[in-house]
Amino acid sequence: MTGSLYQEIMNACTFYIWYRLEEVAGIVTRKEVAALAGVSEATVSRVLNGVGPMKEETKQRVLLAARELNYHPNAIAQSFARRRSGNLGVVLPYVPKVHIFSTYYFSEVLSGIGAQVKESGYDMLLMFRSPGEESDYTRMFRSQKVDACIILGAMDTPGERAELKKLEEGGFPFCLVNQHYAGERYNEVDADHETGSYLAVRHLLDSGYRGIAMLNGPPPFSNSGDRLRGYARALREAGLLEPGTEAGVRDGIPPHWYYEGNYSRTSGYKAAAEIYRHLGRIDAVFVSNDRMAVGLMQGLRELGCIPGKDLAVIGYDDSDAARMTDPPLTSVAVPFYEMGRLAAKNLLLRSAGGPEADAGLDAFQLKLETKLIIRQSCRKKS
Amino acid sequence: MTGSLYQEIMNACTFYIWYRLEEVAGIVTRKEVAALAGVSEATVSRVLNGVGPMKEETKQRVLLAARELNYHPNAIAQSFARRRSGNLGVVLPYVPKVHIFSTYYFSEVLSGIGAQVKESGYDMLLMFRSPGEESDYTRMFRSQKVDACIILGAMDTPGERAELKKLEEGGFPFCLVNQHYAGERYNEVDADHETGSYLAVRHLLDSGYRGIAMLNGPPPFSNSGDRLRGYARALREAGLLEPGTEAGVRDGIPPHWYYEGNYSRTSGYKAAAEIYRHLGRIDAVFVSNDRMAVGLMQGLRELGCIPGKDLAVIGYDDSDAARMTDPPLTSVAVPFYEMGRLAAKNLLLRSAGGPEADAGLDAFQLKLETKLIIRQSCRKKS
Repeated sequence: MTGSLYQEIMNACTFYIWYRLEEVAGIVTRKEVAALAGVSEATVSRVLNGVGPMKEETKQRVLLAARELNYHPNAIAQSFARRRSGNLGVVLPYVPKVHIFSTYYFSEVLSGIGAQVKESGYDMLLMFRSPGEESDYTRMFRSQKVDACIILGAMDTPGERAELKKLEEGGFPFCLVNQHYAGERYNEVDADHETGSYLAVRHLLDSGYRGIAMLNGPPPFSNSGDRLRGYARALREAGLLEPGTEAGVRDGIPPHWYYEGNYSRTSGYKAAAEIYRHLGRIDAVFVSNDRMAVGLMQGLRELGCIPGKDLAVIGYDDSDAARMTDPPLTSVAVPFYEMGRLAAKNLLLRSAGGPEADAGLDAFQLKLETKLIIRQSCRKKS
Repeated sequence: MTGSLYQEIMNACTFYIWYRLEEVAGIVTRKEVAALAGVSEATVSRVLNGVGPMKEETKQRVLLAARELNYHPNAIAQSFARRRSGNLGVVLPYVPKVHIFSTYYFSEVLSGIGAQVKESGYDMLLMFRSPGEESDYTRMFRSQKVDACIILGAMDTPGERAELKKLEEGGFPFCLVNQHYAGERYNEVDADHETGSYLAVRHLLDSGYRGIAMLNGPPPFSNSGDRLRGYARALREAGLLEPGTEAGVRDGIPPHWYYEGNYSRTSGYKAAAEIYRHLGRIDAVFVSNDRMAVGLMQGLRELGCIPGKDLAVIGYDDSDAARMTDPPLTSVAVPFYEMGRLAAKNLLLRSAGGPEADAGLDAFQLKLETKLIIRQSCRKKS
């Protein structure tokens, strides 16, 4: 017996019991709500499940009738009927020693998702990845805890690719934010980090800097790779790199120009010592996020090097911190809130109609613009 | 027929169908997992539901067997059996025009809740309150979407009190954070805002200030009232207020010393103009959160009054912003992360054992310490 036939039987039985019980038990039924509102039972279902377009006036009439009769559909019976939980899942990465909601990136993306989830009448189920544990994304769908899910902080690793493939094959709607998998057509909302990085480095070049180092994040994040490409392109155009092939952007970048952290403040702080040793050959640093830039500036200052004066610094994200550092940090603004909102919006649109609606639509792949915000951390070189 | 008898029948039917179907359909059953692991079916259930203490070795054996047989309990069937969703609900207030996860208070409390939820093997269901809509907290329990819930940003209004009373009467486990209802014994985790405020104002007095104004938040938050009490106590002890009764702390506070915002930066900015007009009679301001303090300092600066020099300012929360303002802000540290963590921990402990376990325990009411952090915004008065 196949899984889906099995499901059908199960649903049918439960349906039957549920509806019979509603009558037998004499509690308020959908039928009564329909009668009071003067609409069909199907319309009551559609309004209460928030499915499909609906005249505002009809909707209000149904809601009023439901309230008047004190009608409360049981969510479990409902999810049998709809096979829906009403929850949008959001998978969060394990970030050691950091209050995850207090980081600019996650707080903004989650705020955007939250705003849309609320507007669409869903709740938001946060699921925390465990350290060192293989993800099992299909589980939350199989167990019907979520109707769709957004995956944050995913990395390009063989294990992660295999898990996403399983989700796709199972027909479970999901969306990636700020992460891209070369060769796949998953739903994703990304930002144009390559252009953002290119513009930041161009700005340094235009301001007279020639020894421009990069402090990047880990390569398994596609956005680290995007930033590296933008950085290398600007340097190459300026004739500062040996030609090198486009595919291998690290080709031609001198090792004392390239540093890697893990997007934490501490890793930026640690990089300061290394960068300081090569100060003769470096007059500016392009840093892949503001947190690392803040740490780098702290570390440099302790070594007696004044950021913005002895060494130009550009950050990335344009977080609140960028406005508050001394000197205020030139940075690249990324519309994280909007990215979260659009991911939720497009995903819920597709999943609301059930598997059929989704099947007819191509995967969406949005790439939002980034923008250089100029402050005082990289003045014109005198 | 009572609601609970109705539930019993419904559960029994579904149970029966489910277990029969498992056998008939020939899919992997709990029985087979038990046989492979060499334990009882009850043990399999306890391991998979994460209920009760369990030897690590037994647990691993069951999990291995379940994985080997590719056994996936259906969450809906599971929740009939356990009557549990595995979700801790968190109700969030409607905060217009603000990215809610980006505010220090919510991001820290949620990080604390999230850490504990993860440790306890739960997921976290975020529910967003709608503007101008009456809350209906019991709904999420009746619909079995959550096993317990934490309510953030609740206010002391008659409507809110009525809703909480319904939760209590329904036996639904919930906990308030940073909010207290006089006359009730609900589960709550609060901070000692009265002492925190008292110490802040004492510090201003000790530094030579005598015209100390307060910029407070809205009175329906109990923590606004707590802060006002601490402020008034310090002033009264210093002989700066007419005696007045303890109950009506506003008695005796001159109107040009008391201002109210809504905890937003903008409301602090707006208060600057008012406070500026009374500068002759005010030499220091105690502000009920850092966001308002930041807005106030911006506003004052635009009016030509230098915070920390022309007017001492103390904030509250000790958020990241306090370290980043100019001058850095003296503030009162509140362990929001820990408050969130403890709320989740105590609540899940009580709800994990089912209604019986909860019934035996008194409500918990924790009050955590606050701490004055001295920076440069309130130097000794010269």
